[in-house]
Amino acid sequence: MAATARPRIVVLGAGFAGLRAIRILSRGGQRVLWVDGRNYHTFLPLLYQVATAGLEPQAIAYPTRSFLRRRPGVDFRLARIVGGDAGARTLLTGDGEQIAYEYLLVATGGAAADFGIPGVRAHAFNLYDVEDARALRNHALELLERAAVTPDSPARRALLTFVIVGGGPTGVETAGALAEFRRHVVPSDYPSIPPEQLRIVLVEARDAVLGTFASSLQLRARRDLEHFGIEIRLGASVARVGPEGVDLAGGEHLAAGTVVWAAGIRAADVAGRLGLPTGRSGRIRVASTLEVVDHPGVFAAGDVALVEGAEGLPQVAQVAIQGGSHAAENILRAIAGRPLESFRYRDKGAMATIGRSRAIAEIGRLRLSGPLAWWAWLLLHLVMLIGFRNRLVVLIDWAWNYVTYDRGLRAIIGPDRAAGENYASWETR
Amino acid sequence: MAATARPRIVVLGAGFAGLRAIRILSRGGQRVLWVDGRNYHTFLPLLYQVATAGLEPQAIAYPTRSFLRRRPGVDFRLARIVGGDAGARTLLTGDGEQIAYEYLLVATGGAAADFGIPGVRAHAFNLYDVEDARALRNHALELLERAAVTPDSPARRALLTFVIVGGGPTGVETAGALAEFRRHVVPSDYPSIPPEQLRIVLVEARDAVLGTFASSLQLRARRDLEHFGIEIRLGASVARVGPEGVDLAGGEHLAAGTVVWAAGIRAADVAGRLGLPTGRSGRIRVASTLEVVDHPGVFAAGDVALVEGAEGLPQVAQVAIQGGSHAAENILRAIAGRPLESFRYRDKGAMATIGRSRAIAEIGRLRLSGPLAWWAWLLLHLVMLIGFRNRLVVLIDWAWNYVTYDRGLRAIIGPDRAAGENYASWETR
Repeated sequence: MAATARPRIVVLGAGFAGLRAIRILSRGGQRVLWVDGRNYHTFLPLLYQVATAGLEPQAIAYPTRSFLRRRPGVDFRLARIVGGDAGARTLLTGDGEQIAYEYLLVATGGAAADFGIPGVRAHAFNLYDVEDARALRNHALELLERAAVTPDSPARRALLTFVIVGGGPTGVETAGALAEFRRHVVPSDYPSIPPEQLRIVLVEARDAVLGTFASSLQLRARRDLEHFGIEIRLGASVARVGPEGVDLAGGEHLAAGTVVWAAGIRAADVAGRLGLPTGRSGRIRVASTLEVVDHPGVFAAGDVALVEGAEGLPQVAQVAIQGGSHAAENILRAIAGRPLESFRYRDKGAMATIGRSRAIAEIGRLRLSGPLAWWAWLLLHLVMLIGFRNRLVVLIDWAWNYVTYDRGLRAIIGPDRAAGENYASWETR
Repeated sequence: MAATARPRIVVLGAGFAGLRAIRILSRGGQRVLWVDGRNYHTFLPLLYQVATAGLEPQAIAYPTRSFLRRRPGVDFRLARIVGGDAGARTLLTGDGEQIAYEYLLVATGGAAADFGIPGVRAHAFNLYDVEDARALRNHALELLERAAVTPDSPARRALLTFVIVGGGPTGVETAGALAEFRRHVVPSDYPSIPPEQLRIVLVEARDAVLGTFASSLQLRARRDLEHFGIEIRLGASVARVGPEGVDLAGGEHLAAGTVVWAAGIRAADVAGRLGLPTGRSGRIRVASTLEVVDHPGVFAAGDVALVEGAEGLPQVAQVAIQGGSHAAENILRAIAGRPLESFRYRDKGAMATIGRSRAIAEIGRLRLSGPLAWWAWLLLHLVMLIGFRNRLVVLIDWAWNYVTYDRGLRAIIGPDRAAGENYASWETR
């Protein structure tokens, strides 16, 4: 396939920024090509629930082509981008297809940053896509099975230790969900494992968890985490991750069968392949209009963009949603010959959940915690999900989990056959 | 781990036969160890719906440990069996654990039989477990994406051709579900693909599809399949499967991007590793009591068993369910010193679905087809599913598919990270 596609506008990425941009561009009557390496949008805020057997992967994955059913001007391409010439306004896909465009929006998002710490890539689990979440779930469930037949020993305690690095929302929410699994699933399903032997350690380099929230909420979250039996290590840096656990900077070793890395974010690799100017963490440098510096007609939004004069904007869903909208509107302005407008982020607040009936929320000056914040968190995430079917499935799974205290999705469904021999099989193919 | 477990009874397999046996043995007050290479029971009759994006894998997978919650006498072991000494009454797991037993029930089920036809193992998709189904779904969705960017040509037609080998229920149901996908999903999701270019060919070596049913129902099923636009090749044997399609015995080549092998069943490999007498297709030879010939205390049931004097029993769920029950009851009889009883299969009838409002059913002398048979099929399969949560999820997915004509689960969720680079990703890890 050496064909050349010639859409007027190309949007790279089906995350929050790309999805929102497509919604706006599809109304503009332009020929738009939407490209992603996956054929679905992933609702990242609920990824930790897939990892902890609360939701199935498909519940947070929304097929891009379903989104385009009533948007005939937009075509979709399942492709990886392997190169690009921003001067010539072309992209090259992994299948060898050339794509020539007039306007480009790069919304390829982020990936886990390891800050060069040895062993993170090889031994820690990320939570950045559905495959990550499945891998973590399958790994944890297999370790529980192994622990169930291992006599009590330091080796068994290590199998049952989960170290979560990073005290932001992802780390806190994962730790909290594991604590619920320990409390409600382990006693009934693994009678040979005393639940208190399942150890959950949350490691954070700074002196607080959820450090972007007001300090009263940070303290509340910390108390809630401790209430759920999660060990919190503040001011603790990771020096190395190995197959047997984590070495902290002070020299302490945490023996752990599972290390989850939720400590940082960088731009996804693709940003570097496009020939665009990049800054901190590989992010693409854009002006306040979200147009890439020195590249008129090329825009970037979401986690991949570093906005001049607003470098401190957090890499969260709200910034991506608003940035994707704004970049799309500026592309339509440019096509219409109107002046571009500067992006103003409207902070709608932030929330994090710790576990059943425990969450924190900060909306302007309003600070919520406890059951009210938790119900607000549930409602907001249901509303934000894309697609009625996904909302329905998540609602039912949540209602199920709430009423039964169960996490029903505990089948270890391994890699596809083509990927080679499967651990959990009678056969040795 | 070189420990030795000493349960009184071991049940190998969490399929229909094993599950039913555990239900009965758990009431007998014995120490039972249940072993499977997976941590879940798979509801195989709905596997084709996972393959065709109608159900998510977890909907038909029921965790074994959930089943054991109210059965404290039964312990579960996630393990593969790599060897056994039926004389010494021991088993060896892949983790090196010895298991010594007094009574053994082998219910390890079946696997796809290729009859030695070249290329089947390497190039055809099976439908024998959830990983098979996911692999087939992902493959088919990726070919649709490739076809969407390939100009009309023989190559594109081949990408869009599905050959299903085997005219039994699995083959027929898979073909029917693909036809629904073609009719209701392709036009809206792949506007560049004319639906009629998606070709579905059902190949059967004998002169009828669903050959175990009454001939009037066979004809009805054939008409229904043709109504859905499925090409049926009767009396056609496969000589070879290659990466580009299927060679039929007569010399004809069917160029096809996807070949599904639903043509036969043999015993799973594990049967041969136990040192027990085997017969046709590697199945374990058992007497009418389901006790293995010359091995008192060792029983086999379900697809893996070949019953003396009843060699013609079909390898279907009903035989496995009744056989698993019967073998478990005979084990309890043997423990109580009572004489074993012979297995009598009660034929409760058979059903197969072709597509929306089209199914056939044969229950004694009663023959049903059309909408009534279809609704009966839906109801029966809902009732047979294990676990309230699974029933609820399947009911909702079916209601969703029925009302919207959609198949919502079209995200290509690939292998876990650990399995290597993922096609559908921005990253090249």
